[in-house]
Amino acid sequence: MRDHTGMTQVTHKRGSAGDVVESELERLTTESAVRITGRVVDNPIVKLGGLEIIPESVEILNLAETPLPIDEHTGLEQRLDWRFLDVRRRFPAQVLFAVQTTLEQGMREYAYAQGCTEMHTPKLMGTASESGAEVFKLGYFDRDAYLAQSPQFFKQMAIAAGIDKVFEIGPVFRAEPSFTSRHATEFTGVDVELAWISDVEDVMAFEERMLAHALAKVAEAHGEAIREAFGVEVTVPSVPFPRITMADAQEILRAEGWDPEGAKEDLDPEGERGIAAHIQRETGHEFVFVTDYPASIRPFYHMRPAGRPDLTSSFDLMWKGLEITTGAQREHRHGVLLKQAAEKDMNTGPMQDYLNTFRYGCPPHGGLGMGLSRVLMVLLGLDSIREASFLFRGPNRLTP
Amino acid sequence: MRDHTGMTQVTHKRGSAGDVVESELERLTTESAVRITGRVVDNPIVKLGGLEIIPESVEILNLAETPLPIDEHTGLEQRLDWRFLDVRRRFPAQVLFAVQTTLEQGMREYAYAQGCTEMHTPKLMGTASESGAEVFKLGYFDRDAYLAQSPQFFKQMAIAAGIDKVFEIGPVFRAEPSFTSRHATEFTGVDVELAWISDVEDVMAFEERMLAHALAKVAEAHGEAIREAFGVEVTVPSVPFPRITMADAQEILRAEGWDPEGAKEDLDPEGERGIAAHIQRETGHEFVFVTDYPASIRPFYHMRPAGRPDLTSSFDLMWKGLEITTGAQREHRHGVLLKQAAEKDMNTGPMQDYLNTFRYGCPPHGGLGMGLSRVLMVLLGLDSIREASFLFRGPNRLTP
Repeated sequence: MRDHTGMTQVTHKRGSAGDVVESELERLTTESAVRITGRVVDNPIVKLGGLEIIPESVEILNLAETPLPIDEHTGLEQRLDWRFLDVRRRFPAQVLFAVQTTLEQGMREYAYAQGCTEMHTPKLMGTASESGAEVFKLGYFDRDAYLAQSPQFFKQMAIAAGIDKVFEIGPVFRAEPSFTSRHATEFTGVDVELAWISDVEDVMAFEERMLAHALAKVAEAHGEAIREAFGVEVTVPSVPFPRITMADAQEILRAEGWDPEGAKEDLDPEGERGIAAHIQRETGHEFVFVTDYPASIRPFYHMRPAGRPDLTSSFDLMWKGLEITTGAQREHRHGVLLKQAAEKDMNTGPMQDYLNTFRYGCPPHGGLGMGLSRVLMVLLGLDSIREASFLFRGPNRLTP
Repeated sequence: MRDHTGMTQVTHKRGSAGDVVESELERLTTESAVRITGRVVDNPIVKLGGLEIIPESVEILNLAETPLPIDEHTGLEQRLDWRFLDVRRRFPAQVLFAVQTTLEQGMREYAYAQGCTEMHTPKLMGTASESGAEVFKLGYFDRDAYLAQSPQFFKQMAIAAGIDKVFEIGPVFRAEPSFTSRHATEFTGVDVELAWISDVEDVMAFEERMLAHALAKVAEAHGEAIREAFGVEVTVPSVPFPRITMADAQEILRAEGWDPEGAKEDLDPEGERGIAAHIQRETGHEFVFVTDYPASIRPFYHMRPAGRPDLTSSFDLMWKGLEITTGAQREHRHGVLLKQAAEKDMNTGPMQDYLNTFRYGCPPHGGLGMGLSRVLMVLLGLDSIREASFLFRGPNRLTP
């Protein structure tokens, strides 16, 4: 018998005719939900703690059909079709959601201690944010609406509303036909936005401390279970995390022979892994902030450092070579923002509400967006984001 | 000068020509974002704590345009158009989000202490849940998807996955053309689901304790600010909350003259207020669970009490006459569930994934769904849910 705390052995000696316990036990099928009442007795030959239960009553609450639709040989996609059975039958999956709960609570704890307000910004928008290319469109009474691909614009509105430190955990939606092991069309985002920052360094300092705090909690509460279930040791990172500019990262990578086609200004996944490996060799650290991304590959609302219109005051955070966060100082000056939008040939018509946010006294601010399942993927050494979410959503998967 | 902690006075004596502080102060407009450095000095005639700042430097970070688009005479709808200014200018709105943060954290604290796991269930679904009538439909690559109108089905899948106590705070979407003061097309739901319950009483006991715990935290942290901003006294409710069956509630209401057209089996808003007023007169309690709703007005998945196929093991929770929660024990027996769906003439075709959840050993369970903004509305005595959300979404409002 198994519950969420573990397994125990139930032993019944075949009895006389009319033995109700026996007849119920004989009806039982694997994975049935059952309530058993009995006496716990010592039995040194039982592996599960030297204890077993001698049942006095057996109540079958939900008899499982046979055969089960999945077994230990079932492939990933069919396991996802029967995700509830997949999670119930596998100890690691159970640990995963306990870890997720602690991780979130650790991040919230840090954010609250820093004075953050938890916001719930709308997921329904009247216009497509940014490019519109990766946005889901829906019918909204007699018009169209769009699903927010990030709380970006709305958390900036909260900053302009005088809420100086904003924290949100919620779904984000990406209409991106990506089939990689790290993309999903719906995922849980952890978003932070901070007003009155001096520069983007304040945002990185917040994030590294938030992660270190949360990972310390995870290590304490689940370190042993994670070792047992995933064979992974949770390392609580020291702060500050290493930082490297994109220019320096590229120089190092090119010296090591990295020469991708196409990715002239950005890092491709190989480059991300390469720079992370380099930093780990040099510093022993699993995390690295890559900073000063070129303006050409960042959104128009990222602030540019003084005198460097070609760069942005932005960063990505890599953990063991996987990008888990993008962050930046935002441009809060209405005129500069309009200029940067024009440079990128953006149609600002649908963005009036957003742009208006900066016309009546919006303070300097910056923030970050983190993918929760990506953090879990790296933390637990999972191969795919499909296993790091409860019910994965991708271009080909909308069920169960 | 105002920040999120309050107001302070800045006093500068007109100086000589070339006084940089003076020229910057003269440029200032109302609601501009400004960083002032100076000396704090005693001044007994200053109302704000007998202190003022003598500025040594003034840095205008974002000069507000004039005139501001809203002022103290602006009506609700136009205030919502400029919600960031509306919130920034009004002390009560600032308090509201601090209260929301504490309220959520209090509920989480209770839920975690009870062993809950925090889940993030998908908002994108492959088929319309339940009736389909109030569900938003969107284009999803080459097919259609739907927005979840509640995490109901998914949190039940989490129960079937062996996650015994499920907690989620997230957005829910209702394509309902309702224009009342208490309806929104997108709102934040607080959802709980509990496995291995004895009956629906376990769910009500969880909820009343969770609310009492959270409201005690709110009273302690914000009682004084709520009194000042909203003129409302926060009462920490005693447990258990009063309970009354729908049959008894109707009998009492009809004896008091309530005789609505149409609402023969349900309570209309007047009835909800009436029974709440009755309970408050009788017991002094602001909350009341109305239980045993007729099966005819409840979803097919609500469990029916043994021998009473006309009733459900369900409840609504009213606070000061407003419904803030619906809850129930769920039918976990696959055969019974199919029968109840058939009775309601439901097309079970699109619900196969949901129905499959109950075929392989799903334990008894029940849960609740609470509207966070409705709780805030009642707690703070607000007239409309529009003021209890950061950015309200209704049939006519998708912006800002």
